[in-house]
Amino acid sequence: MQFSLQPADHTLRLSKINPRGGDGIDPGAIEPKTKADLKRLDDLCYLMYAEDRHALLVILQGIDASGKNSTTKHIAKGVNPDGLQVHSFKKPSELEIEHDYLWRIHKVAPHRGNVAVFNRSHYEEVIVTRIHPEILSAQHLPTNIANDPEIFQKRYRHINDFERMLAENGTVIVKLLLHISKEEQVQRFRERLENPKKHWKFSEDDLDERRHWDDYMRTFEEVIHATSTEWAPWYVIPADQKWYRNWLIGRILVEQLEKLDMRFPTFENHKVRLEQLAQV
Amino acid sequence: MQFSLQPADHTLRLSKINPRGGDGIDPGAIEPKTKADLKRLDDLCYLMYAEDRHALLVILQGIDASGKNSTTKHIAKGVNPDGLQVHSFKKPSELEIEHDYLWRIHKVAPHRGNVAVFNRSHYEEVIVTRIHPEILSAQHLPTNIANDPEIFQKRYRHINDFERMLAENGTVIVKLLLHISKEEQVQRFRERLENPKKHWKFSEDDLDERRHWDDYMRTFEEVIHATSTEWAPWYVIPADQKWYRNWLIGRILVEQLEKLDMRFPTFENHKVRLEQLAQV
Repeated sequence: MQFSLQPADHTLRLSKINPRGGDGIDPGAIEPKTKADLKRLDDLCYLMYAEDRHALLVILQGIDASGKNSTTKHIAKGVNPDGLQVHSFKKPSELEIEHDYLWRIHKVAPHRGNVAVFNRSHYEEVIVTRIHPEILSAQHLPTNIANDPEIFQKRYRHINDFERMLAENGTVIVKLLLHISKEEQVQRFRERLENPKKHWKFSEDDLDERRHWDDYMRTFEEVIHATSTEWAPWYVIPADQKWYRNWLIGRILVEQLEKLDMRFPTFENHKVRLEQLAQV
Repeated sequence: MQFSLQPADHTLRLSKINPRGGDGIDPGAIEPKTKADLKRLDDLCYLMYAEDRHALLVILQGIDASGKNSTTKHIAKGVNPDGLQVHSFKKPSELEIEHDYLWRIHKVAPHRGNVAVFNRSHYEEVIVTRIHPEILSAQHLPTNIANDPEIFQKRYRHINDFERMLAENGTVIVKLLLHISKEEQVQRFRERLENPKKHWKFSEDDLDERRHWDDYMRTFEEVIHATSTEWAPWYVIPADQKWYRNWLIGRILVEQLEKLDMRFPTFENHKVRLEQLAQV
Protein backbone atom coordinates (compact mmCIF):
# COMPACT_ATOMS: atom_id res chain seq x y z
CA MET A 1 0.00 0.00 0.00
CA GLN A 2 1.46 3.34 -1.09
CA PHE A 3 0.60 6.06 1.34
CA SER A 4 1.10 9.78 1.56
CA LEU A 5 -0.72 12.00 4.06
CA GLN A 6 -1.30 15.54 2.88
CA PRO A 7 -0.69 18.50 5.17
CA ALA A 8 -3.78 20.27 6.49
CA ASP A 9 -4.88 23.52 4.89
CA HIS A 10 -7.60 26.14 5.39
CA THR A 11 -10.27 23.73 4.17
CA LEU A 12 -9.70 21.39 7.12
CA ARG A 13 -12.78 20.38 9.12
CA LEU A 14 -11.89 18.19 12.09
CA SER A 15 -15.43 16.80 12.13
CA LYS A 16 -14.76 15.35 8.67
CA ILE A 17 -11.74 13.37 9.86
CA ASN A 18 -12.50 10.03 11.42
CA PRO A 19 -10.33 9.50 14.52
CA ARG A 20 -10.71 5.78 13.90
CA GLY A 21 -8.98 6.08 10.51
CA GLY A 22 -7.40 2.74 9.70
CA ASP A 23 -10.59 0.69 9.98
CA GLY A 24 -10.64 -1.82 7.15
CA ILE A 25 -6.84 -2.05 7.04
CA ASP A 26 -5.18 -5.14 8.47
CA PRO A 27 -2.90 -4.03 11.32
CA GLY A 28 -0.75 -7.11 10.76
CA ALA A 29 0.03 -5.95 7.22
CA ILE A 30 1.05 -2.50 8.45
CA GLU A 31 3.34 -3.56 11.28
CA PRO A 32 6.34 -4.51 9.08
CA LYS A 33 5.93 -1.28 7.12
CA THR A 34 6.03 0.74 10.33
CA LYS A 35 9.17 -1.12 11.39
CA ALA A 36 10.83 -0.49 8.04
CA ASP A 37 10.02 3.22 8.30
CA LEU A 38 11.53 3.41 11.78
CA LYS A 39 14.71 1.82 10.42
CA ARG A 40 14.75 4.27 7.53
CA LEU A 41 14.17 7.14 9.97
CA ASP A 42 17.14 5.97 12.00
CA ASP A 43 19.36 5.99 8.87
CA LEU A 44 18.17 9.45 7.87
CA CYS A 45 18.74 10.86 11.36
CA TYR A 46 22.23 9.33 11.37
CA LEU A 47 22.97 11.09 8.08
CA MET A 48 21.54 14.34 9.41
CA TYR A 49 23.73 14.04 12.53
CA ALA A 50 26.83 13.36 10.41
CA GLU A 51 26.14 16.21 8.02
CA ASP A 52 25.42 18.62 10.88
CA ARG A 53 23.49 21.17 8.84
CA HIS A 54 19.78 20.44 9.20
CA ALA A 55 17.68 19.79 12.29
CA LEU A 56 14.25 18.21 12.75
CA LEU A 57 11.58 19.64 15.01
CA VAL A 58 8.45 17.57 15.68
CA ILE A 59 5.62 19.37 17.47
CA LEU A 60 2.91 17.29 19.13
CA GLN A 61 -0.40 18.77 20.12
CA GLY A 62 -3.66 17.11 21.05
CA ILE A 63 -6.27 17.04 23.76
CA ASP A 64 -5.64 15.20 27.06
CA ALA A 65 -5.01 11.47 26.55
CA SER A 66 -4.56 11.87 22.81
CA GLY A 67 -1.29 9.93 23.00
CA LYS A 68 1.46 12.56 23.00
CA ASN A 69 3.71 10.62 25.37
CA SER A 70 3.20 7.35 23.58
CA THR A 71 3.90 9.00 20.21
CA THR A 72 7.11 10.43 21.61
CA LYS A 73 8.18 6.94 22.66
CA HIS A 74 7.43 5.65 19.18
CA ILE A 75 9.51 8.35 17.46
CA ALA A 76 12.35 7.79 19.93
CA LYS A 77 12.62 4.22 18.66
CA GLY A 78 13.76 5.61 15.31
CA VAL A 79 16.31 8.13 16.55
CA ASN A 80 19.73 7.73 18.18
CA PRO A 81 19.15 9.03 21.73
CA ASP A 82 22.37 11.05 21.48
CA GLY A 83 20.80 13.23 18.82
CA LEU A 84 17.33 13.47 20.34
CA GLN A 85 15.91 15.95 22.82
CA VAL A 86 12.37 15.68 24.14
CA HIS A 87 10.80 18.74 25.73
CA SER A 88 7.50 18.74 27.61
CA PHE A 89 6.12 22.22 27.96
CA LYS A 90 4.12 22.53 31.13
CA LYS A 91 2.83 25.63 32.90
CA PRO A 92 5.42 28.41 32.31
CA SER A 93 7.72 29.24 35.22
CA GLU A 94 7.93 32.71 36.76
CA LEU A 95 11.09 33.39 34.75
CA GLU A 96 9.46 32.23 31.54
CA ILE A 97 6.48 34.54 32.06
CA GLU A 98 8.91 37.43 32.36
CA HIS A 99 9.69 36.93 28.64
CA ASP A 100 7.75 36.71 25.42
CA TYR A 101 6.03 33.34 25.06
CA LEU A 102 8.43 32.14 22.34
CA TRP A 103 11.48 32.63 24.56
CA ARG A 104 11.34 29.25 26.30
CA ILE A 105 10.57 27.56 22.98
CA HIS A 106 13.42 29.10 21.01
CA LYS A 107 15.90 28.28 23.79
CA VAL A 108 15.39 24.55 23.21
CA ALA A 109 15.02 24.56 19.43
CA PRO A 110 17.04 21.62 18.07
CA HIS A 111 20.79 21.93 17.36
CA ARG A 112 21.91 21.18 13.82
CA GLY A 113 22.08 17.45 13.25
CA ASN A 114 19.56 16.79 16.03
CA VAL A 115 15.91 15.97 16.50
CA ALA A 116 13.70 17.70 19.03
CA VAL A 117 10.24 16.46 19.95
CA PHE A 118 8.03 19.03 21.65
CA ASN A 119 5.28 17.48 23.76
CA ARG A 120 2.98 20.53 23.70
CA SER A 121 4.58 23.76 22.53
CA HIS A 122 4.06 27.46 21.78
CA TYR A 123 0.69 26.38 20.37
CA GLU A 124 -0.59 26.21 23.94
CA GLU A 125 -0.35 30.00 23.81
CA VAL A 126 -3.06 30.18 21.17
CA ILE A 127 -5.12 27.22 22.40
CA VAL A 128 -5.35 26.94 26.16
CA THR A 129 -4.94 30.71 26.70
CA ARG A 130 -7.90 31.19 24.41
CA ILE A 131 -10.13 28.74 26.22
CA HIS A 132 -8.95 30.00 29.62
CA PRO A 133 -8.43 33.77 29.28
CA GLU A 134 -7.32 33.97 32.93
CA ILE A 135 -4.01 32.37 31.85
CA LEU A 136 -3.40 35.23 29.44
CA SER A 137 -4.25 37.78 32.15
CA ALA A 138 -1.53 36.30 34.37
CA GLN A 139 1.21 36.81 31.76
CA HIS A 140 2.26 40.32 32.87
CA LEU A 141 1.55 41.77 29.45
CA PRO A 142 1.17 45.53 29.07
CA THR A 143 -2.57 46.30 29.24
CA ASN A 144 -2.88 47.52 25.66
CA ILE A 145 -1.39 44.22 24.43
CA ALA A 146 -3.46 41.97 26.71
CA ASN A 147 -6.66 43.79 25.66
CA ASP A 148 -5.84 43.93 21.95
CA PRO A 149 -8.74 42.22 20.13
CA GLU A 150 -6.17 41.15 17.52
CA ILE A 151 -3.88 39.45 20.05
CA PHE A 152 -4.37 35.93 18.69
CA GLN A 153 -4.08 37.04 15.07
CA LYS A 154 -0.77 38.62 16.03
CA ARG A 155 0.35 35.48 17.81
CA TYR A 156 -0.39 33.45 14.69
CA ARG A 157 1.83 35.85 12.77
CA HIS A 158 4.60 35.64 15.41
CA ILE A 159 4.46 31.87 15.27
CA ASN A 160 4.51 31.69 11.48
CA ASP A 161 7.40 34.16 11.33
CA PHE A 162 9.35 32.31 14.01
CA GLU A 163 8.88 28.94 12.35
CA ARG A 164 9.84 30.35 8.95
CA MET A 165 13.02 31.78 10.43
CA LEU A 166 13.90 28.37 11.88
CA ALA A 167 13.11 26.70 8.53
CA GLU A 168 15.22 29.23 6.64
CA ASN A 169 18.11 28.40 8.92
CA GLY A 170 17.90 24.67 8.25
CA THR A 171 15.24 23.20 10.57
CA VAL A 172 12.61 20.88 9.15
CA ILE A 173 9.37 21.39 11.10
CA VAL A 174 6.57 18.83 11.31
CA LYS A 175 3.47 19.59 13.37
CA LEU A 176 1.17 16.76 14.38
CA LEU A 177 -2.31 17.08 15.84
CA LEU A 178 -3.25 13.80 17.49
CA HIS A 179 -6.96 13.52 16.76
CA ILE A 180 -8.97 11.21 19.04
CA SER A 181 -12.68 10.77 19.55
CA LYS A 182 -14.54 11.77 22.67
CA GLU A 183 -15.32 8.07 23.28
CA GLU A 184 -11.66 7.11 23.03
CA GLN A 185 -10.73 9.80 25.52
CA VAL A 186 -13.20 8.52 28.11
CA GLN A 187 -11.90 5.00 27.52
CA ARG A 188 -8.31 6.14 28.15
CA PHE A 189 -9.32 8.08 31.27
CA ARG A 190 -11.03 4.94 32.56
CA GLU A 191 -7.84 2.91 32.06
CA ARG A 192 -5.88 5.53 33.97
CA LEU A 193 -8.27 5.34 36.91
CA GLU A 194 -8.53 1.57 36.90
CA ASN A 195 -4.79 0.91 36.74
CA PRO A 196 -2.93 1.99 39.93
CA LYS A 197 0.26 2.43 37.86
CA LYS A 198 -1.54 4.99 35.75
CA HIS A 199 -3.33 7.02 38.43
CA TRP A 200 -0.50 9.58 38.27
CA LYS A 201 -1.53 10.40 34.71
CA PHE A 202 -4.98 11.49 35.78
CA SER A 203 -5.77 14.93 37.07
CA GLU A 204 -8.97 16.41 38.50
CA ASP A 205 -8.74 19.01 35.73
CA ASP A 206 -9.10 16.35 33.07
CA LEU A 207 -12.86 16.03 33.48
CA ASP A 208 -13.30 19.82 33.63
CA GLU A 209 -11.33 20.20 30.44
CA ARG A 210 -13.44 17.56 28.78
CA ARG A 211 -16.40 19.94 29.11
CA HIS A 212 -14.53 22.28 26.78
CA TRP A 213 -14.23 19.56 24.12
CA ASP A 214 -16.06 21.55 21.42
CA ASP A 215 -14.06 24.70 22.21
CA TYR A 216 -10.87 22.71 21.78
CA MET A 217 -11.99 21.30 18.45
CA ARG A 218 -12.99 24.75 17.20
CA THR A 219 -9.70 26.24 18.38
CA PHE A 220 -7.56 23.45 16.90
CA GLU A 221 -9.28 24.05 13.59
CA GLU A 222 -8.72 27.79 13.65
CA VAL A 223 -5.09 27.39 14.71
CA ILE A 224 -4.42 24.92 11.91
CA HIS A 225 -6.06 27.20 9.37
CA ALA A 226 -3.85 30.06 10.50
CA THR A 227 -0.54 28.24 10.96
CA SER A 228 -0.30 25.33 8.53
CA THR A 229 2.35 26.73 6.22
CA GLU A 230 4.60 25.53 3.46
CA TRP A 231 7.57 25.69 5.83
CA ALA A 232 5.82 24.18 8.86
CA PRO A 233 2.78 22.12 7.86
CA TRP A 234 0.23 20.64 10.23
CA TYR A 235 -0.85 17.03 9.84
CA VAL A 236 -4.01 15.78 11.53
CA ILE A 237 -3.38 12.22 12.67
CA PRO A 238 -6.35 9.92 13.30
CA ALA A 239 -5.12 8.63 16.64
CA ASP A 240 -7.73 6.35 18.20
CA GLN A 241 -5.75 3.34 16.97
CA LYS A 242 -2.09 3.47 17.95
CA TRP A 243 -0.78 1.17 15.21
CA TYR A 244 -2.37 3.40 12.58
CA ARG A 245 -1.16 6.61 14.22
CA ASN A 246 2.41 5.26 14.44
CA TRP A 247 2.42 4.15 10.85
CA LEU A 248 1.28 7.59 9.60
CA ILE A 249 3.79 9.46 11.71
CA GLY A 250 6.71 7.30 10.65
CA ARG A 251 5.72 7.81 6.99
CA ILE A 252 5.53 11.60 7.37
CA LEU A 253 8.90 11.93 9.11
CA VAL A 254 10.65 9.72 6.57
CA GLU A 255 9.09 11.62 3.67
CA GLN A 256 10.15 14.99 5.07
CA LEU A 257 13.76 13.98 5.68
CA GLU A 258 14.05 12.28 2.30
CA LYS A 259 13.25 15.58 0.62
CA LEU A 260 16.51 17.07 1.92
CA ASP A 261 19.66 16.87 -0.15
CA MET A 262 21.82 15.43 2.64
CA ARG A 263 25.30 13.99 2.09
CA PHE A 264 27.90 12.40 4.31
CA PRO A 265 30.91 14.68 4.66
CA THR A 266 33.92 13.05 2.98
CA PHE A 267 37.34 12.97 4.55
CA GLU A 268 39.48 14.39 1.73
CA ASN A 269 42.69 12.54 2.51
CA HIS A 270 41.10 9.23 3.38
CA LYS A 271 43.30 7.25 0.95
CA VAL A 272 46.53 8.78 2.18
CA ARG A 273 45.52 8.19 5.78
CA LEU A 274 44.54 4.60 5.01
CA GLU A 275 48.00 3.99 3.56
CA GLN A 276 49.59 5.52 6.63
CA LEU A 277 47.45 3.30 8.84
CA ALA A 278 48.70 0.27 6.89
CA GLN A 279 52.26 1.20 7.85
CA VAL A 280 51.62 1.72 11.54
CA MET B 1 17.06 74.02 23.58
CA GLN B 2 14.24 71.67 22.67
CA PHE B 3 15.54 68.61 20.89
CA SER B 4 14.08 65.54 19.25
CA LEU B 5 16.10 63.22 17.01
CA GLN B 6 14.07 61.52 14.31
CA PRO B 7 14.50 57.82 13.59
CA ALA B 8 16.32 56.95 10.37
CA ASP B 9 14.33 55.89 7.33
CA HIS B 10 14.97 54.73 3.77
CA THR B 11 16.17 58.21 2.76
CA LEU B 12 19.15 58.02 5.11
CA ARG B 13 22.56 58.83 3.62
CA LEU B 14 25.35 58.40 6.15
CA SER B 15 27.57 60.72 4.12
CA LYS B 16 25.05 63.51 4.79
CA ILE B 17 25.33 63.11 8.56
CA ASN B 18 28.20 64.98 10.15
CA PRO B 19 29.86 62.76 12.79
CA ARG B 20 30.96 66.00 14.48
CA GLY B 21 27.35 67.05 15.02
CA GLY B 22 27.21 69.34 18.00
CA ASP B 23 29.69 71.90 16.69
CA GLY B 24 28.40 75.34 17.50
CA ILE B 25 26.65 74.17 20.65
CA ASP B 26 28.19 74.97 24.01
CA PRO B 27 28.99 71.66 25.76
CA GLY B 28 28.74 73.43 29.11
CA ALA B 29 25.10 74.28 28.39
CA ILE B 30 24.30 70.68 27.49
CA GLU B 31 25.89 68.97 30.47
CA PRO B 32 23.10 69.80 32.97
CA LYS B 33 20.50 68.69 30.43
CA THR B 34 22.26 65.36 30.01
CA LYS B 35 22.35 64.92 33.78
CA ALA B 36 18.67 65.74 34.09
CA ASP B 37 17.84 63.18 31.41
CA LEU B 38 19.85 60.49 33.20
CA LYS B 39 17.90 61.24 36.37
CA ARG B 40 14.62 61.07 34.45
CA LEU B 41 15.76 57.79 32.84
CA ASP B 42 16.46 56.37 36.27
CA ASP B 43 12.93 57.29 37.42
CA LEU B 44 11.35 55.77 34.33
CA CYS B 45 13.35 52.54 34.68
CA TYR B 46 12.33 52.34 38.34
CA LEU B 47 8.69 52.64 37.29
CA MET B 48 9.20 50.03 34.56
CA TYR B 49 10.79 47.68 37.09
CA ALA B 50 7.91 48.19 39.55
CA GLU B 51 5.23 47.72 36.92
CA ASP B 52 6.96 44.60 35.53
CA ARG B 53 5.26 44.62 32.14
CA HIS B 54 7.53 46.36 29.67
CA ALA B 55 11.24 45.89 28.96
CA LEU B 56 13.77 48.08 27.20
CA LEU B 57 16.28 46.77 24.69
CA VAL B 58 19.04 49.08 23.48
CA ILE B 59 21.11 47.83 20.56
CA LEU B 60 24.48 49.46 19.88
CA GLN B 61 26.25 49.06 16.58
CA GLY B 62 29.14 50.99 15.09
CA ILE B 63 32.55 50.51 13.56
CA ASP B 64 35.58 49.73 15.77
CA ALA B 65 36.29 52.49 18.29
CA SER B 66 32.94 54.16 17.68
CA GLY B 67 32.32 54.24 21.44
CA LYS B 68 30.04 51.27 22.15
CA ASN B 69 31.64 50.52 25.53
CA SER B 70 31.69 54.10 26.60
CA THR B 71 28.03 54.54 25.57
CA THR B 72 27.12 51.47 27.62
CA LYS B 73 28.80 53.05 30.64
CA HIS B 74 26.84 56.23 30.08
CA ILE B 75 23.48 54.44 29.89
CA ALA B 76 24.35 52.37 32.97
CA LYS B 77 24.57 55.61 34.96
CA GLY B 78 20.83 56.06 34.43
CA VAL B 79 19.68 52.53 35.28
CA ASN B 80 19.56 50.61 38.56
CA PRO B 81 22.20 47.87 38.06
CA ASP B 82 19.75 45.32 39.45
CA GLY B 83 17.49 45.81 36.44
CA LEU B 84 20.24 46.10 33.82
CA GLN B 85 21.94 43.40 31.77
CA VAL B 86 24.74 44.21 29.35
CA HIS B 87 25.58 41.65 26.66
CA SER B 88 28.61 41.86 24.39
CA PHE B 89 28.21 39.64 21.37
CA LYS B 90 31.57 38.37 20.21
CA LYS B 91 32.40 35.60 17.75
CA PRO B 92 29.69 32.91 18.16
CA SER B 93 30.63 29.79 20.10
CA GLU B 94 30.46 26.29 18.62
CA LEU B 95 27.13 25.74 20.37
CA GLU B 96 25.75 29.02 19.10
CA ILE B 97 26.67 28.15 15.51
CA GLU B 98 24.68 24.94 15.88
CA HIS B 99 21.54 27.11 16.06
CA ASP B 100 19.94 29.84 14.00
CA TYR B 101 21.72 33.17 14.47
CA LEU B 102 18.88 34.66 16.53
CA TRP B 103 19.07 31.90 19.14
CA ARG B 104 21.81 33.45 21.27
CA ILE B 105 20.13 36.85 20.96
CA HIS B 106 16.65 35.76 22.00
CA LYS B 107 18.05 33.84 24.97
CA VAL B 108 19.23 37.10 26.56
CA ALA B 109 16.38 39.37 25.52
CA PRO B 110 15.46 41.51 28.54
CA HIS B 111 13.04 40.28 31.21
CA ARG B 112 9.98 42.38 31.86
CA GLY B 113 10.85 45.39 33.99
CA ASN B 114 14.48 45.26 32.89
CA VAL B 115 16.86 46.98 30.52
CA ALA B 116 19.27 45.11 28.27
CA VAL B 117 22.07 46.81 26.38
CA PHE B 118 23.47 44.81 23.47
CA ASN B 119 27.02 45.79 22.56
CA ARG B 120 26.89 44.45 19.00
CA SER B 121 23.98 42.14 18.23
CA HIS B 122 22.23 40.07 15.57
CA TYR B 123 23.06 42.93 13.20
CA GLU B 124 26.59 41.55 12.96
CA GLU B 125 24.94 38.73 10.99
CA VAL B 126 23.99 41.13 8.21
CA ILE B 127 27.06 43.37 8.47
CA VAL B 128 30.30 41.54 9.18
CA THR B 129 29.11 38.32 7.48
CA ARG B 130 28.46 40.38 4.39
CA ILE B 131 31.87 41.99 4.33
CA HIS B 132 33.58 38.70 5.24
CA PRO B 133 31.63 35.92 3.45
CA GLU B 134 33.97 33.29 4.96
CA ILE B 135 32.18 33.84 8.29
CA LEU B 136 28.89 32.87 6.68
CA SER B 137 30.49 29.78 5.11
CA ALA B 138 31.57 28.59 8.55
CA GLN B 139 28.00 28.65 9.93
CA HIS B 140 27.07 25.05 9.02
CA LEU B 141 24.10 26.19 6.96
CA PRO B 142 22.58 23.80 4.45
CA THR B 143 24.16 24.56 1.04
CA ASN B 144 20.96 25.83 -0.58
CA ILE B 145 20.53 28.35 2.24
CA ALA B 146 24.16 29.49 2.30
CA ASN B 147 24.12 30.00 -1.49
CA ASP B 148 20.72 31.65 -1.64
CA PRO B 149 21.24 35.04 -3.36
CA GLU B 150 18.37 36.33 -1.20
CA ILE B 151 19.97 35.29 2.09
CA PHE B 152 20.43 38.81 3.42
CA GLN B 153 16.98 39.94 2.33
CA LYS B 154 15.62 36.97 4.26
CA ARG B 155 17.72 37.83 7.29
CA TYR B 156 16.33 41.38 7.23
CA ARG B 157 12.86 39.86 7.27
CA HIS B 158 13.76 37.48 10.12
CA ILE B 159 15.15 40.36 12.12
CA ASN B 160 12.16 42.63 11.52
CA ASP B 161 9.76 39.81 12.41
CA PHE B 162 11.72 38.90 15.53
CA GLU B 163 11.88 42.49 16.75
CA ARG B 164 8.17 43.00 16.06
CA MET B 165 7.35 39.91 18.08
CA LEU B 166 9.39 41.27 21.00
CA ALA B 167 7.71 44.67 20.67
CA GLU B 168 4.24 43.09 20.54
CA ASN B 169 5.06 41.31 23.78
CA GLY B 170 6.04 44.51 25.59
CA THR B 171 9.68 45.29 24.75
CA VAL B 172 10.64 48.78 23.66
CA ILE B 173 13.51 48.54 21.17
CA VAL B 174 15.94 51.36 20.41
CA LYS B 175 18.75 50.81 17.89
CA LEU B 176 21.68 53.19 17.86
CA LEU B 177 24.33 53.43 15.18
CA LEU B 178 27.34 55.28 16.61
CA HIS B 179 28.59 57.29 13.66
CA ILE B 180 32.21 58.45 13.79
CA SER B 181 34.52 59.90 11.16
CA LYS B 182 37.51 58.07 9.72
CA GLU B 183 39.76 60.74 11.32
CA GLU B 184 38.22 60.20 14.73
CA GLN B 185 38.76 56.45 14.44
CA VAL B 186 42.48 56.86 13.69
CA GLN B 187 42.73 59.27 16.60
CA ARG B 188 41.14 56.73 18.97
CA PHE B 189 43.36 53.92 17.68
CA ARG B 190 46.38 56.15 18.32
CA GLU B 191 45.27 56.70 21.93
CA ARG B 192 44.90 52.96 22.39
CA LEU B 193 48.45 52.34 21.15
CA GLU B 194 50.01 55.21 23.07
CA ASN B 195 48.40 54.35 26.41
CA PRO B 196 49.68 51.06 27.93
CA LYS B 197 46.38 50.71 29.82
CA LYS B 198 44.55 50.72 26.51
CA HIS B 199 46.75 48.39 24.47
CA TRP B 200 44.32 45.54 25.24
CA LYS B 201 41.63 47.34 23.28
CA PHE B 202 43.67 47.24 20.09
CA SER B 203 43.76 44.27 17.75
CA GLU B 204 45.85 43.60 14.64
CA ASP B 205 42.54 43.19 12.83
CA ASP B 206 41.58 46.77 13.51
CA LEU B 207 43.77 48.20 10.75
CA ASP B 208 42.66 45.51 8.28
CA GLU B 209 39.03 46.28 9.03
CA ARG B 210 39.69 49.97 8.49
CA ARG B 211 40.43 49.16 4.85
CA HIS B 212 36.80 48.06 4.57
CA TRP B 213 35.56 51.44 5.84
CA ASP B 214 33.49 52.21 2.73
CA ASP B 215 32.00 48.70 2.71
CA TYR B 216 30.94 49.18 6.30
CA MET B 217 29.31 52.54 5.56
CA ARG B 218 27.46 51.11 2.56
CA THR B 219 26.33 48.10 4.58
CA PHE B 220 25.21 50.16 7.58
CA GLU B 221 23.13 52.25 5.22
CA GLU B 222 21.49 49.26 3.57
CA VAL B 223 20.81 47.59 6.90
CA ILE B 224 19.21 50.73 8.29
CA HIS B 225 17.06 51.12 5.18
CA ALA B 226 15.86 47.53 5.56
CA THR B 227 15.39 47.36 9.33
CA SER B 228 14.43 50.76 10.69
CA THR B 229 10.82 50.06 11.57
CA GLU B 230 8.03 51.65 13.50
CA TRP B 231 8.48 49.05 16.26
CA ALA B 232 12.30 49.10 16.31
CA PRO B 233 13.67 52.32 14.84
CA TRP B 234 17.33 53.05 14.12
CA TYR B 235 18.87 56.32 15.21
CA VAL B 236 22.17 57.48 13.71
CA ILE B 237 24.12 59.19 16.45
CA PRO B 238 26.88 61.64 15.49
CA ALA B 239 29.49 60.24 17.86
CA ASP B 240 32.82 62.00 17.37
CA GLN B 241 32.05 64.14 20.41
CA LYS B 242 31.08 62.12 23.45
CA TRP B 243 29.15 64.84 25.27
CA TYR B 244 26.95 65.32 22.21
CA ARG B 245 26.48 61.59 21.70
CA ASN B 246 25.52 61.09 25.35
CA TRP B 247 23.04 63.92 25.30
CA LEU B 248 21.29 62.56 22.19
CA ILE B 249 21.09 59.04 23.56
CA GLY B 250 19.72 60.12 26.92
CA ARG B 251 17.05 62.17 25.12
CA ILE B 252 16.02 59.26 22.90
CA LEU B 253 15.71 56.76 25.75
CA VAL B 254 13.70 59.17 27.91
CA GLU B 255 11.38 60.00 25.00
CA GLN B 256 10.73 56.33 24.22
CA LEU B 257 9.94 55.36 27.81
CA GLU B 258 7.77 58.43 28.34
CA LYS B 259 5.51 57.26 25.51
CA LEU B 260 4.49 54.19 27.54
CA ASP B 261 1.44 54.31 29.75
CA MET B 262 3.22 52.96 32.86
CA ARG B 263 1.71 53.01 36.34
CA PHE B 264 2.90 51.94 39.76
CA PRO B 265 0.93 48.92 40.96
CA THR B 266 -1.20 49.90 43.94
CA PHE B 267 -1.51 47.78 47.03
CA GLU B 268 -5.31 47.53 47.39
CA ASN B 269 -5.44 47.18 51.15
CA HIS B 270 -2.74 49.71 51.92
CA LYS B 271 -4.96 51.68 54.32
CA VAL B 272 -6.06 48.62 56.26
CA ARG B 273 -2.49 47.40 56.49
CA LEU B 274 -1.28 50.82 57.63
CA GLU B 275 -3.84 50.75 60.44
CA GLN B 276 -2.70 47.28 61.43
CA LEU B 277 0.92 48.45 61.41
CA ALA B 278 -0.05 51.26 63.77
CA GLN B 279 -1.30 48.67 66.27
CA VAL B 280 1.79 46.46 66.17
